[in-house]
Amino acid sequence: MQSLHQKKYRQRHDVFLVEGGKSVLELLRSGVAAESVYCTPEFAAQNRAKLAAGPPPVPVSAAELAQLGTLATNTTALAVARRPPETPLPPALPQTALLLALDEVRDPGNLGTLIRLADWYGLPGVVLSDTCADPYAPKTVAATMGSFARVRVWPRDLPAWLGTLPAGTGIYGADLHGQNVHRAALAPAGVLVMGSESHGLTAAVEARLTRRLHIPRGPGGGAESLNVAVSAAILLDNFFRGT
Amino acid sequence: MQSLHQKKYRQRHDVFLVEGGKSVLELLRSGVAAESVYCTPEFAAQNRAKLAAGPPPVPVSAAELAQLGTLATNTTALAVARRPPETPLPPALPQTALLLALDEVRDPGNLGTLIRLADWYGLPGVVLSDTCADPYAPKTVAATMGSFARVRVWPRDLPAWLGTLPAGTGIYGADLHGQNVHRAALAPAGVLVMGSESHGLTAAVEARLTRRLHIPRGPGGGAESLNVAVSAAILLDNFFRGT
Repeated sequence: MQSLHQKKYRQRHDVFLVEGGKSVLELLRSGVAAESVYCTPEFAAQNRAKLAAGPPPVPVSAAELAQLGTLATNTTALAVARRPPETPLPPALPQTALLLALDEVRDPGNLGTLIRLADWYGLPGVVLSDTCADPYAPKTVAATMGSFARVRVWPRDLPAWLGTLPAGTGIYGADLHGQNVHRAALAPAGVLVMGSESHGLTAAVEARLTRRLHIPRGPGGGAESLNVAVSAAILLDNFFRGT
Repeated sequence: MQSLHQKKYRQRHDVFLVEGGKSVLELLRSGVAAESVYCTPEFAAQNRAKLAAGPPPVPVSAAELAQLGTLATNTTALAVARRPPETPLPPALPQTALLLALDEVRDPGNLGTLIRLADWYGLPGVVLSDTCADPYAPKTVAATMGSFARVRVWPRDLPAWLGTLPAGTGIYGADLHGQNVHRAALAPAGVLVMGSESHGLTAAVEARLTRRLHIPRGPGGGAESLNVAVSAAILLDNFFRGT
């Protein structure tokens, strides 16, 4: 079990760890295949009907759960799940819906928060550059708060993939010198690309943008930038406010 | 130095750790007192003028920086700083400006991201319930990306403090059953209270709200909630869009 903490092992075996009762129940509800479920007798008693959707749970103590997983405390449940097979990403999708694309988002907490955000806005999925954190790392899965079971992810060579999109597809990115997002007429279609926490978009991705958007800073504001999930949230709220 | 990782020691000594070159330079620029600065010779050579604002830097290797601090890698600099003395919080402040108040935000990464967000919007400061994470914990400071040096924090018994505000002060909170934030006429004055990641606002704080705001979910969205910093960002963008 300890070896599931390592990305190489997770990929070879196509399995990943789901920690915490809420996430385990989301997993079982979603139809993503659960290989095994471990939980405390208390959690099993409280969630008998929901747990029936998965393999018979193995009773363990909270101390054993913490031992098996990566969380310092887990008093409820843990599951080993099988990575869902990748579904096709139709090239015409960004003409009817908004996709989120992430360029070198290496922090698993930020990646998980962004997947949760994509789920909140009902986006069809998230395209990940090869240099993003692993969407199935324990910290990523935990930060999605259950959304990992609903949001599709498509790992791609991001600049190359952006190059395959039909002409006229809106490719949006945050840029301090872009248009004020409050004054932009936005509809939720195209691709919103968010860059890494420290370096912004890579040059090859930046070159593919068709529109640059700027989040206005408050009067007297001092910070040079915002967290990547925070920026994505503000932009998405602006994309969806007309809907 | 290792003992600075512990909250009890940090409070007794009134000092805290600042890790990473960017944060150390923000510290020196801010006027918050730096007790000592450790950096690699490369960093010292590149930042001679900016480092002159602090005590003479002690040259150390990147391996020594990682040893002294909490980050897995730190190839630039680390400082030990003195907690700035608390400045008074005028009770009438929320009538002229918007304050952020946090109720049981226990995750230091979220707290730091919220302090950075407050800095982006130029808020006068952040009021913290006694149950929030330590604003000077290394993970909090790192997540502020330098904003720790500019944003004032006021630890308070939050429900009691809210009770001292003049009648008519707007006290705003996020609530799934609140008014759609896109249709609310909002000006940046009053107090925006954000609750914990898992449990929302505590009952005593909830009872003090004068307005409840709801962030609309996207069509077909599945997530039940948003990360606390993400929610605060969307609400703040809505408070400031008329300014």
